[in-house]
Amino acid sequence: MTAPDDLLSALRAICGSAHVLQGDGLDAYEADHRGRARGHALAVALPGSVAEVAAVVKTCARQRVAIVPQGGNTGLSVGSVPDASGRQLVLSLKRLRAVRGIDAANLTLTAEAGCLLQQAQEAAAAAALLLPLSLAAEGSCTLGGNLATNAGGTQVLRYGNARDLCLGLEVVTAQGEIWNGLTGLRKDNTGYDLRDLFVGSEGTLGIITAATLKLFAQPATQLTAWIALPGLQAAVDLLALARAQLGAALTGFEVMNQFSLHLVHTHWPALRMPPWQQTPWCALLQAGFADSPQHARARFEALLQTALAQTCAQNAVLAETGAQAAQFWRVRENIPAAQRQEGLNIKHDISLPTSAIPAFAAETGALLAREIVGVRLVTFGHLGDGNLHYNVQAPEGLDTAEFLRAQEPRINALVYDAVARFGGSFSAEHGIGSLKLGAMRRYKSPVALQLMRAIKTALDPQGILNPGRVLPP
Amino acid sequence: MTAPDDLLSALRAICGSAHVLQGDGLDAYEADHRGRARGHALAVALPGSVAEVAAVVKTCARQRVAIVPQGGNTGLSVGSVPDASGRQLVLSLKRLRAVRGIDAANLTLTAEAGCLLQQAQEAAAAAALLLPLSLAAEGSCTLGGNLATNAGGTQVLRYGNARDLCLGLEVVTAQGEIWNGLTGLRKDNTGYDLRDLFVGSEGTLGIITAATLKLFAQPATQLTAWIALPGLQAAVDLLALARAQLGAALTGFEVMNQFSLHLVHTHWPALRMPPWQQTPWCALLQAGFADSPQHARARFEALLQTALAQTCAQNAVLAETGAQAAQFWRVRENIPAAQRQEGLNIKHDISLPTSAIPAFAAETGALLAREIVGVRLVTFGHLGDGNLHYNVQAPEGLDTAEFLRAQEPRINALVYDAVARFGGSFSAEHGIGSLKLGAMRRYKSPVALQLMRAIKTALDPQGILNPGRVLPP
Repeated sequence: MTAPDDLLSALRAICGSAHVLQGDGLDAYEADHRGRARGHALAVALPGSVAEVAAVVKTCARQRVAIVPQGGNTGLSVGSVPDASGRQLVLSLKRLRAVRGIDAANLTLTAEAGCLLQQAQEAAAAAALLLPLSLAAEGSCTLGGNLATNAGGTQVLRYGNARDLCLGLEVVTAQGEIWNGLTGLRKDNTGYDLRDLFVGSEGTLGIITAATLKLFAQPATQLTAWIALPGLQAAVDLLALARAQLGAALTGFEVMNQFSLHLVHTHWPALRMPPWQQTPWCALLQAGFADSPQHARARFEALLQTALAQTCAQNAVLAETGAQAAQFWRVRENIPAAQRQEGLNIKHDISLPTSAIPAFAAETGALLAREIVGVRLVTFGHLGDGNLHYNVQAPEGLDTAEFLRAQEPRINALVYDAVARFGGSFSAEHGIGSLKLGAMRRYKSPVALQLMRAIKTALDPQGILNPGRVLPP
Repeated sequence: MTAPDDLLSALRAICGSAHVLQGDGLDAYEADHRGRARGHALAVALPGSVAEVAAVVKTCARQRVAIVPQGGNTGLSVGSVPDASGRQLVLSLKRLRAVRGIDAANLTLTAEAGCLLQQAQEAAAAAALLLPLSLAAEGSCTLGGNLATNAGGTQVLRYGNARDLCLGLEVVTAQGEIWNGLTGLRKDNTGYDLRDLFVGSEGTLGIITAATLKLFAQPATQLTAWIALPGLQAAVDLLALARAQLGAALTGFEVMNQFSLHLVHTHWPALRMPPWQQTPWCALLQAGFADSPQHARARFEALLQTALAQTCAQNAVLAETGAQAAQFWRVRENIPAAQRQEGLNIKHDISLPTSAIPAFAAETGALLAREIVGVRLVTFGHLGDGNLHYNVQAPEGLDTAEFLRAQEPRINALVYDAVARFGGSFSAEHGIGSLKLGAMRRYKSPVALQLMRAIKTALDPQGILNPGRVLPP
């Protein structure tokens, strides 16, 4: 191994001394934001252009130094912080934050990897267009990270996840070459789909430096409803009804169980709650219409009336104002914080065929109740995408840290085994990072793992890009 | 090399003697359907199950025999017929034609590779759902071929191409292993995107044996309009207007130049033509609404009135009946046949950023007119996707075969160079096959080609899957 001094001089020569950080005070780069891991970097390099990213990678490749690419460092699976060895370079894309351009007639936006999601949303809005990727961390996460992890969020039902919104990429390869695939084309059948290989690969195959994303016309009218549901099968029935009656106007379909709402009510007593105590589940529906407000409202009301008549809804409130809609969403969005207040819990970000969700929840809930007397389930999520946050909270009064220590592996196995039986995924949105390598080993088929390993070896033969992530050793 | 006799016995043992074909009369498997290539196969194997496909591949891998996977053999780039060596095995997926199931609540259909697209559409329709992939060859092309070539068609604008409609795949690898990735999940972030790597890889990385596809609610009302346009910029303006006013209800946006329509009128004089002679371009718009017929019509009429007022449309006819709508489509669909009647022409299946189409067409048209006095352009296609069929017809009276011989390479270079200058693609829908290897070499970046070659070598190290396709030597 070459002396790090040589490497550091080379990095300083490329990025400028001010943009190669070392020593203490690097928490923002070395610790993951949920506090589950704290590493120690050889250094943090902040290149200022794609050419500088390429030069950094070339230098590291020559010296076989591992690189951990990093965007907003808001990921939930510990995929963007260095290990404890002090031998991995953090390559932050933060300084590549330009919106390179908007092509309104082509409905595309091209921006650099370090551009904040919110900044890109605002640039689209300034052109009276919509960038529909939307998630809790949008004020601090970056487009590069969104694409590297194939982020989801609350509008996937209508607009798809980050992968579906991406038309083209610019990527620095493990050899430090620049691939300019920044096309704004809707159709392009010229060889293998490199774009989708890099999207979701969590920085292990290449470093995304810029992207061209799809934009959409903004809906003329947006409406939101809160609906009390007798059960999860009713939720699935309501989803089918909403799809049939609203078509592509349906943009969001969230569900929450009563215990999730109870936690919000307990820890934010000042928050005004829509009706929720009479039914085990509630749903939050959002729809965006190209129609006039009057017609949009008539259609949405017709849906709610049908749902009430068919008894898949027990109660429904259509938000009368934007403020009331925002209040409904605040209840939904405060569930994660409310469960934190209640104490640590065991989190699962799972997806299932929507049709399988009622049976999965019934069977898995019963299994958990049998294993752990008094167990409490915080179940909520994007039912429209088959995606549930299926979190297991300790029985009342138990020490939560002790509960996690004692139960987490067993509960994970129980939940993920059930997910596998129902044809689901153990990671719907959050990716693998370092946290879910065990599940990769256990639940992905050996053939899939073998194909993935062959691809990794082909594109990064030295194994310098985010080593130890995504693929179990 | 092992004696073919051994191989044939092994194949007969796997598939049954009746399903291993040899000798004469194999045109359907050995000739491409546009008559541009005629090969000679070692044999044609028709396995009856995924296990049999895997066994055939294992046998060939052991003996290093090249395999040409084949579906409906309707591709346009000569990618599914054997070469003339007599040493390549055609592996037809025709016998794997089952619709394995429909999950209505999850909006998915799972079917085998040899299932005809139309058969899959009909299965979805029988469940009152929509499989929106739709193209001219739907009565004879197969789902496996659609996915292997990432087929497009007339509804990509709203529903995406074959890639966008695919949720999961079952694939036999080059080693003869079966990868079961038949998930019906909308969100699944567990490792690299193997699905999209196989989609569009034209049988060079693995053999698709089954797929799970997205279904949609059927639109309640479908409306079609014929619109006369003053120019291509007006078409782009109308597209923006239609997107803003109709939102996701807009499902199709086709354009045709006057010469295309003139050819249809000349060769099908009995066909009733909508108004077309007053303007250089016409458009065909299709929209699917979840609304009532009355409201849908009001919205569509409002769009047409705005377009007329803003002068991006000069004339507009809304189809009064399904029969009239079908008649409009018949005009559009008869363009390819009409140009065949007129004589061979030089075809280009290109895509561009929609915003660049007017300038591209003006510049390239002028270049061609300067090069070839009297040249005639048959330009039509899916403007909503930025996809044009930009075909160059010989000047009137010239021998078309002679014209092709003399001019094709020069005209291809002229058109594709212009496409590259405007950030477009030389193959929007039809793929590479054997026909476009030269363009791959000329227009894809060396970095992209290097990445693709690395992937090919990683997944098919012996090079036995559809050798010589997609990647130039």
